[in-house]
Amino acid sequence: MTGNELMTGVTIDSNSAFIAEQLNSLGLKVHKIVTVGDNLPVLVDEIKEAVDLADILIINGGLGPTVDDLTAEALARACEQDLIHHPRAETHVRNWCAQRNIVPNDANLKQAILPATARIIPNSIGSAVGIEVNHRGCFVFCTPGVPNEMRAMMTDSIIPTIQKQFPDSRQHFIKRLQIFGIGESGIQQKIHSELANWPQEIELGFRAGMPTLELKLTVHDKLDIPLRDIWEQKVRNLLGSVVFGEGADTLASVVVNRLKEAGQTVTVAESCTGGLIASQLTAIPGASAVFEAGFVTYANTAKTAILGVRAESLEKYGAVSEQVVREMAIGALERTSADYVVAVSGIAGPDGGTAEKPVGTIWIAWGGRFDIKVRKLFYPAERRFLQALVSAYALDLIRREVLGITEMPRYFRN
Amino acid sequence: MTGNELMTGVTIDSNSAFIAEQLNSLGLKVHKIVTVGDNLPVLVDEIKEAVDLADILIINGGLGPTVDDLTAEALARACEQDLIHHPRAETHVRNWCAQRNIVPNDANLKQAILPATARIIPNSIGSAVGIEVNHRGCFVFCTPGVPNEMRAMMTDSIIPTIQKQFPDSRQHFIKRLQIFGIGESGIQQKIHSELANWPQEIELGFRAGMPTLELKLTVHDKLDIPLRDIWEQKVRNLLGSVVFGEGADTLASVVVNRLKEAGQTVTVAESCTGGLIASQLTAIPGASAVFEAGFVTYANTAKTAILGVRAESLEKYGAVSEQVVREMAIGALERTSADYVVAVSGIAGPDGGTAEKPVGTIWIAWGGRFDIKVRKLFYPAERRFLQALVSAYALDLIRREVLGITEMPRYFRN
Repeated sequence: MTGNELMTGVTIDSNSAFIAEQLNSLGLKVHKIVTVGDNLPVLVDEIKEAVDLADILIINGGLGPTVDDLTAEALARACEQDLIHHPRAETHVRNWCAQRNIVPNDANLKQAILPATARIIPNSIGSAVGIEVNHRGCFVFCTPGVPNEMRAMMTDSIIPTIQKQFPDSRQHFIKRLQIFGIGESGIQQKIHSELANWPQEIELGFRAGMPTLELKLTVHDKLDIPLRDIWEQKVRNLLGSVVFGEGADTLASVVVNRLKEAGQTVTVAESCTGGLIASQLTAIPGASAVFEAGFVTYANTAKTAILGVRAESLEKYGAVSEQVVREMAIGALERTSADYVVAVSGIAGPDGGTAEKPVGTIWIAWGGRFDIKVRKLFYPAERRFLQALVSAYALDLIRREVLGITEMPRYFRN
Repeated sequence: MTGNELMTGVTIDSNSAFIAEQLNSLGLKVHKIVTVGDNLPVLVDEIKEAVDLADILIINGGLGPTVDDLTAEALARACEQDLIHHPRAETHVRNWCAQRNIVPNDANLKQAILPATARIIPNSIGSAVGIEVNHRGCFVFCTPGVPNEMRAMMTDSIIPTIQKQFPDSRQHFIKRLQIFGIGESGIQQKIHSELANWPQEIELGFRAGMPTLELKLTVHDKLDIPLRDIWEQKVRNLLGSVVFGEGADTLASVVVNRLKEAGQTVTVAESCTGGLIASQLTAIPGASAVFEAGFVTYANTAKTAILGVRAESLEKYGAVSEQVVREMAIGALERTSADYVVAVSGIAGPDGGTAEKPVGTIWIAWGGRFDIKVRKLFYPAERRFLQALVSAYALDLIRREVLGITEMPRYFRN
């Protein structure tokens, strides 16, 4: 991992965890992660040492256009190669600039000067191509530091190449369940007491997704997959409706996809979440089939003017109340043709709390055209985390509605 | 950094960024961060190498009670010391257990077996004490892997010790400028050509914030701060209105704070960004003073029903057009009392593009009640990145409007 921003603590490195997870899922062991600044001799030494030690070296960062971007030069020196001009890389840079109406400058074109034996790895997002070199039997892959560019390059190019080169590595067969509405210790307690004879062939792991949770069931032998699937079913039966998906599912993707299958639509009326629920839904490709409109009614006047919330309700009960959130939901349904609605109003802080309604007080209304339910939540937390959490509750309630889950979720049972 | 969880990607390491930031604020340079698993010979080798290289080595993790916790043993081997029983450490473990009504077991008491010359560093939170050893002139500090225990130990004990030992370390005085609308290479080229006599006392650094950019001016001597401030002004004059803030400013925070100062408000009408602009504004504490309402009109029917966009405009020009985005902006202003508006409509993909309007085509309208401007942007990118970028353009245009910047931004100059 390269970059001065990592040596000063300005940036928390999440790239190495992603890369490590990908390699682990192929059954490859990560021996060492070395993080250094943008310093040519240090980079050269580290590359030399890693090449001697490992079968695979992945270098992250330092492929950009600036003078701080030293990876190509360091790799050339470590592998005793010349830096030469690569026409395919130049074509990529020129196309990237052309699409953006930019005239490529010298700095951009520097990105086409690469080690002589470099194979170009396409970058579907950014201007910097990746590099692959084989030196003394070590496969060296250079990836951009920008997380989404690195992720796309790993998934599309590097992982398939590694799979081809190392077909016999110890395999991991992982099933990931996505969960919302119960914590890690709650799950562990349930499994401990209800599934006491847990088989040792199946590793149980957790990963906090904030505010969702991922539960991983891993086996290392292909022959154990049927066993894993049996125990996955036991876990699903034990946990019930808190399991909302698997693999790469998110609450928003599950809601969008289930609505699409059902040919139904949803609308949202947001106060304290300020558009976050709508933006999470519309981040999912194909959201236009299930989402027609959303309302961000932050001020009381907007609740009245845009959603038809009665001024008397606002005055009598306040904006954060059962009555107002119910009228927001009804108003949103009346102004669209949506089948489902969710409305939220709450005190996200840091200001605006009172003794009666402290920061963290949330009212939420959801349901279909003839069945609006309303509940209160209380979760005092930092503003942005609270907004993310309330959005997750809202999406989860719509998911339950679309799937016809009538059981009230645990988080309201108090 | 030690721990198998770091080698499998299960845990994202935020400890090293905290430690690096602390050391940097003392003016100390972090040379290298090495992350390895719970493997005794590997740990011993890395400690030996670091002790030879550095003045200070901080080891994080591996002080707990389990068989995986190998730091004390590895340190003893690397420094050629015996492991001995430390009564002060045992007292700490016994007190910690007593407070929790736990009878200390062998695993707990293992935490008192430490290298012979170890000095105990108190742990105010957890059961594991920290260790300090001086070997061949290198100060070695061992800290627990649990973030809040590590942080308390760094702040309370290790940083003060380091300050005492290295009173003359080089300080950093950093000024951060926040920038939108020009790339890293564009800035470098401008500075290179226009500010050719850049003083060597001032380090120039960049940090990509996606889609914004941070430019850092760093000096190491307090006496150079006035010089830095002079060159900061030259950079600001050179770059002009692309510099939108400094320090922790974001586009959304600048918009919210400038509007608040001016006693003005903004509304948004979003199609392709689906609520993201509203959610970025409302993520800022105090947004309620400047943001009354936003409209997420994703479907054509919603644009007509909610914002009053004419059906003929949609039919004749399509939803992604100058006419429709202008009518969205006007409709949002008519339905609120906002002083400013921004409206966006575009093709975020992956589907929905045509030859005439490919994915990445965006129309944006912005301005005040009597002065709506409309422009087209084209930026083919992955859906979520495109949404983030369009939100940044929208916020930047409102910022320019509030500040009365009449010059049209670079990104429209083509």
